[in-house]
Amino acid sequence: MQGMLTEIRIAGFGGQGVILAAAVIGKAAAIFEGGYATMTQSFGPEARGGSSSAQVILSSEPILYPYVTLPDVLVVMSQEAYTRFSSQLKPGGVLIVEQDLVRVDQVTPGHSVFAVPATRLAERLGRKVVLNIVMVGFFGAVAALVDREALRQAVADSVPPAMQALNLQAFDKGFEYGAQLMQKLAEDGQSEGILSLDLEVEV
Amino acid sequence: MQGMLTEIRIAGFGGQGVILAAAVIGKAAAIFEGGYATMTQSFGPEARGGSSSAQVILSSEPILYPYVTLPDVLVVMSQEAYTRFSSQLKPGGVLIVEQDLVRVDQVTPGHSVFAVPATRLAERLGRKVVLNIVMVGFFGAVAALVDREALRQAVADSVPPAMQALNLQAFDKGFEYGAQLMQKLAEDGQSEGILSLDLEVEV
Repeated sequence: MQGMLTEIRIAGFGGQGVILAAAVIGKAAAIFEGGYATMTQSFGPEARGGSSSAQVILSSEPILYPYVTLPDVLVVMSQEAYTRFSSQLKPGGVLIVEQDLVRVDQVTPGHSVFAVPATRLAERLGRKVVLNIVMVGFFGAVAALVDREALRQAVADSVPPAMQALNLQAFDKGFEYGAQLMQKLAEDGQSEGILSLDLEVEV
Repeated sequence: MQGMLTEIRIAGFGGQGVILAAAVIGKAAAIFEGGYATMTQSFGPEARGGSSSAQVILSSEPILYPYVTLPDVLVVMSQEAYTRFSSQLKPGGVLIVEQDLVRVDQVTPGHSVFAVPATRLAERLGRKVVLNIVMVGFFGAVAALVDREALRQAVADSVPPAMQALNLQAFDKGFEYGAQLMQKLAEDGQSEGILSLDLEVEV
């Protein structure tokens, strides 16, 4: 019998950095908060076609069985990933989408759906390639499962030294965008539909 | 009961791209050769200190239990990783080391030890950051578990478009270095000790 597990799936296309995003979350939870995590990626015939997905399990105890069944949090960065995985989200689960890459057809009652223009925020830093770390920052602010500083440290530890400054900026940009969204939702009392900020808000 | 499994562990420091290297190998085996693979990274208190390691399992059938027990192939990119994992290599196993980062104390009888100056080869391409993909190329040539073209395609699919050309060059550089080493060993009839080329050989 295992303790309480939290399951997260991150999915998108190959090259978007899905795996690095998953590894950062696992590392943050485990190393900096004294817990345990596993990150698993499975490859098989269904993985043809350039999609990429990874599973992260967070636990207070060593993890005996690292397969995700139904995720508590689903982070998607492509329409294909949304189509494939959104029906697996647990009741009460959190769906996080890249808002320019994913059109959400309908919001399942009981799910919270948060949208972030991570590609555009990454482009503002001059490097679209860090959209995955913008997503991690946004995840940090809206899912509130893992401490901000722990995530930030895990970002720094997971990229080459020459890329640290850029990736930390990307993380902060995503986190601040998410924090601003959460504040606006609290002020407005909004909790239904697709929860997003107007990008024109300066972040 | 599962079919024949091949287990590979890749280990080094955080930021070296251990996970991407593992994911490329898993993807190559599964997608392009119609097999299955899993890539797993575990995080716990022992992961403090900036080390990074990932496990890949290759199989002809879906994988039920994704934990590596004793690897058939161990790829190490740091001294700490060598110290921690080298005793776990299976009898008859293959050890692949980054030769400037790892000092091999002694070669266990029955193990094959191959060394590659991946950092220097990556530096010749102007970007030390691709040392992980040089290692994947070298692994492809010396372990001969996964088809060269499949690995190459998996590299292309796993990095952002702007980084493809550089990563493919890194892959080819590592593969060619490994192929040249294997040819030299066949000519010399050498199979013991630490198997490496003089770097001054032009590759």
